[in-house]
Amino acid sequence: MNFVIIVAGGKGLRMGADLPKQFLPIGGKPVLMHTLEAFHKADAAMRLILVLPQSQQTYWKSLCETHAFTIPHQVADGGETRFHSVKNGLALVDEAGLVGVHDGVRPFASIEVIRRCYAEAARYKAVVPVIDVVETIRMVQGDDSQTVDRNLYKLGQTPQVFDVALLKQAYHQSYIPGFTDDASVVEAYGGKIHLTEGNRENIKITTPFDLKIAETILQK
Amino acid sequence: MNFVIIVAGGKGLRMGADLPKQFLPIGGKPVLMHTLEAFHKADAAMRLILVLPQSQQTYWKSLCETHAFTIPHQVADGGETRFHSVKNGLALVDEAGLVGVHDGVRPFASIEVIRRCYAEAARYKAVVPVIDVVETIRMVQGDDSQTVDRNLYKLGQTPQVFDVALLKQAYHQSYIPGFTDDASVVEAYGGKIHLTEGNRENIKITTPFDLKIAETILQK
Repeated sequence: MNFVIIVAGGKGLRMGADLPKQFLPIGGKPVLMHTLEAFHKADAAMRLILVLPQSQQTYWKSLCETHAFTIPHQVADGGETRFHSVKNGLALVDEAGLVGVHDGVRPFASIEVIRRCYAEAARYKAVVPVIDVVETIRMVQGDDSQTVDRNLYKLGQTPQVFDVALLKQAYHQSYIPGFTDDASVVEAYGGKIHLTEGNRENIKITTPFDLKIAETILQK
Repeated sequence: MNFVIIVAGGKGLRMGADLPKQFLPIGGKPVLMHTLEAFHKADAAMRLILVLPQSQQTYWKSLCETHAFTIPHQVADGGETRFHSVKNGLALVDEAGLVGVHDGVRPFASIEVIRRCYAEAARYKAVVPVIDVVETIRMVQGDDSQTVDRNLYKLGQTPQVFDVALLKQAYHQSYIPGFTDDASVVEAYGGKIHLTEGNRENIKITTPFDLKIAETILQK
């Protein structure tokens, strides 16, 4: 069985904060619905697990009604950190197979990339989509910095896809702040990561500027 | 005196290749004109030096006539590599002061960032605008790769601004392929680079996708 855990951690809905980016509309529909649809399109049999802070779940339900959103998905509670959120999602993964972990605010992972990540995970057990760095990179050490060879680096995206047993074992480790994505959790457990080509449009929507770009991508 | 060398290296205009990105219109006007205007707006007294492959200079002149583009600028010949192009531009810098080097296909350096880069270069002699990395970074070594701490890295933009004498001396070095930007040339010469905050909209237009994003930024 193929699973995907879609992590929508954006805080908000409290104390007059802005609406979390995952709920903002692009093309008239919340970002998160585009994200869920992408995985459903890539594999209609895939089980979708959405991790949302408890305080946002009623709002999400009302959004689904308003937009007549009917793609089946389970909802898990968000945790303290991304690590804890993924762990809560993993608790709903109850079969062997493959599990992807994906950022809720990345609605533009291409169908081709999603399918390839799962196909290669069946062989390599741990797959991360990456893209080249087009800017120069500087490594910063205190007040000092130096140019480094950008050909030695790649930018990681999601979905990061793993063998279910491997990811569950890796998530038994105690949390450390160095766990910035799932690949880093699996690496700390001793797993080897296989890289595959991502797609450049697969941006993470975190600023109003990104939201404008998202509208542009959608119009393509 | 403040100078800027705007490097427009994109090949093309030959053998049925696509038009180089620097000539493509955004908001009805070639990218390169937006770039020149940004520096003119930041400092009307700045001397603008545009480095263009010889084969594109007649075309550029005709574009300037068509668009009634009257911002004064000198034109220098493009070279084999970016290093050689900048060197050709530097030959026209005939006074002490500060010289920026900027990618022709970055029309969105903000006026505030341009001014700050020059102001800080007056003090530090070598300034590079940088932005944070929002994606995870992986370092690749052959078939292997590993997560690295993205907080230790920054993405470099332009304009990179230098003391004229320092940059001229640095450019007396022999070319090596590791010279990917001007900061790397100055560093190889022993210069120390000061970092300042860039602006995220200051993208490098290198793909049709970037061009779409550029239209979006322009509409803001």
